[in-house]
Amino acid sequence: MSLGDRMNWREKLLSATHTNNSLLCVGLDSDLEKIPGFMKESSKNPLLDFNKAIVDATKDLVCAYKLNMAFYEAAGKKGFEALEKTVQFIPKSIFIIIDGKRNDIGNTAQKYAQSLFDTFKADAVTVNPYLGKDGVAPFLEYKEKCSFILCRTSNPSAHDFQDLNVDGKLMYQIVAQKIREWNTNENCGAVVGATYPEELEAVRSILGESIPILIPGVGKQGGDVGKTVINGTNSKKELAIINSSREILFASDKEDFAQHARMKAESLRNEINTFR
Amino acid sequence: MSLGDRMNWREKLLSATHTNNSLLCVGLDSDLEKIPGFMKESSKNPLLDFNKAIVDATKDLVCAYKLNMAFYEAAGKKGFEALEKTVQFIPKSIFIIIDGKRNDIGNTAQKYAQSLFDTFKADAVTVNPYLGKDGVAPFLEYKEKCSFILCRTSNPSAHDFQDLNVDGKLMYQIVAQKIREWNTNENCGAVVGATYPEELEAVRSILGESIPILIPGVGKQGGDVGKTVINGTNSKKELAIINSSREILFASDKEDFAQHARMKAESLRNEINTFR
Repeated sequence: MSLGDRMNWREKLLSATHTNNSLLCVGLDSDLEKIPGFMKESSKNPLLDFNKAIVDATKDLVCAYKLNMAFYEAAGKKGFEALEKTVQFIPKSIFIIIDGKRNDIGNTAQKYAQSLFDTFKADAVTVNPYLGKDGVAPFLEYKEKCSFILCRTSNPSAHDFQDLNVDGKLMYQIVAQKIREWNTNENCGAVVGATYPEELEAVRSILGESIPILIPGVGKQGGDVGKTVINGTNSKKELAIINSSREILFASDKEDFAQHARMKAESLRNEINTFR
Repeated sequence: MSLGDRMNWREKLLSATHTNNSLLCVGLDSDLEKIPGFMKESSKNPLLDFNKAIVDATKDLVCAYKLNMAFYEAAGKKGFEALEKTVQFIPKSIFIIIDGKRNDIGNTAQKYAQSLFDTFKADAVTVNPYLGKDGVAPFLEYKEKCSFILCRTSNPSAHDFQDLNVDGKLMYQIVAQKIREWNTNENCGAVVGATYPEELEAVRSILGESIPILIPGVGKQGGDVGKTVINGTNSKKELAIINSSREILFASDKEDFAQHARMKAESLRNEINTFR
C-alpha cells in the first residue's frame, strides 16, 4: 500500500496542491468523438490510451483529475474499462474526482457510493442535492472521501431553480448553508461554476475556511481566472479546485496533442498562480 | 423491426396499460446482495438470470419495467451486461424506464441521453431538474422518448429543498410548472413519491391530463395505494405508473422466488385496479 492509499482526501488534495504548486484540475471529459482520429485507428481502447497520454503530460502540473462519468458510460464496456484503468494509472499522490452528479433515495444512493468509492476508487465524487440530506448521507459515511455537492452550477440556465428567492435568501445559498451543516465528518465540498464569480464569493463566505470548492467553467465556458481564484480560495489561497477540460484535452487533434495539452495546462496553472 | 420498436413512448405506455389492464411498474432494483443465494452459485450472470425470471413471471401484469442504474453500476461490467440484455429480453410491447436521475450541463447531458436512449434503448429515463432547462433539454430532444423529471421524491428528507417556500409556492410546485412549460415536444413526465399523496394531487393538478407521473414509494416505503391511484391518474384513470421494487423482487429468497414475485405483483396490480 502506497502513501497515497493511506492519506485521507484532505491530506491528498493539499499534498498535491503543494507538490505541484497548483490549483488546476484537468477534467478528463474524454469524448470518443473528439479524441484524435489516429488514436481510434491504432488503439484497442482509445479512451484509455488518450487519458494515459494526457496524464503523463500533465501530472506534475495539477492537484487533481476529474473523470466525467457521462463520457465513459456512453462508450459502454470499453468506457468502463477506460475509467477503471485510468484511475489505476493516475499517480497515487494526485486527487481523483469522479464526476457523476449521482442522487437517489437512501438505499440506492448507498449503491452509488459503493460503486464510486469502493469499485472505482475515487477520492471524491460529485452529488446532486435535490433529494435532501438522506440522498447525500450515504456518500458522507465514507469519512476518508470527499463529496462535492452541486451548489451553483456553471450553465446558463442554472438560475431556473438555483436563484429562486426563499425568504430573502437564494436557493444556492440555502444549499451552501446545508453543506456547512452536513459537514460533521469534515468531508463535504461544493460545486460552484467559475461563470458566476459573485455567487462563488457568496458561497465561499458561507462555507468558511475548510470546505473545498470544485470550480468548473474556466476555458470554453468563459469563467474569469482571476475572479475565480480570488473569490473561490480560502485565506491560504487553497481549497479551490479549478477545472478545465475541453480547452486542455482537445488543444490539438494531431499526434502532438499531449504536448499541446501540457502547454495549455502549464499556462493555466501559471495564470492561476499569479492571483494567489 | 417489431411494432414495439416503431411506437413512440405514449403509444407504447398506453398499449401496455390496456393490454395488461395495469398501472403497475416492476422496479428491477436487482441488488446482487439480495437475490437468492442459489442463483449466485449456479449462474454466469446472476443479475441477468434473476431479471429474466422476474420478467417471465410478471410480463402480463405490468405496464412498465424500471431498471435502477445504481444496482447495475455497482456490479461493474457484469452489471452493464445484465442491464443491456435485460432490456433486450423484455417484450417490445412493454414500456422500459431506465432510472439514473442523470443531470449535467448541456454537452455532458447530451452524452447521458445518447447513452441511455441510443446505447441502452430505454423508452424513458429519469432526470434531475436542479441544473434547469439546459440540463434537461438534450433529453427532450429525443421526441419519441419520455423524460421523467424529479419533482417531489419519495424519501423522508425530500422536504429539505423541495418544500422551500418561494413567494407562496413550494419548490416542487415550481418544478411541476416548469415541467409543463418544457413539454413542447409532449415528452415530459414527472416523478412524485407515493409517500406524499397531497403533493401528488397538487402535481397532477398542475400538470393536467396528458403528462405521465412515475410514482415510486408504495410497498416497503409505505405509500397508500388508493390515494396514489386517485391522486396520481388523469381523468381516464391512466398515465400514473406505480412502481414497486423490493416488495416484489425479494418476496422469497428460495427457488420459488419468481412465483412469489408474480403473486405480489398480481395482488398489487389488482389492488390498484380497485381504485380505477
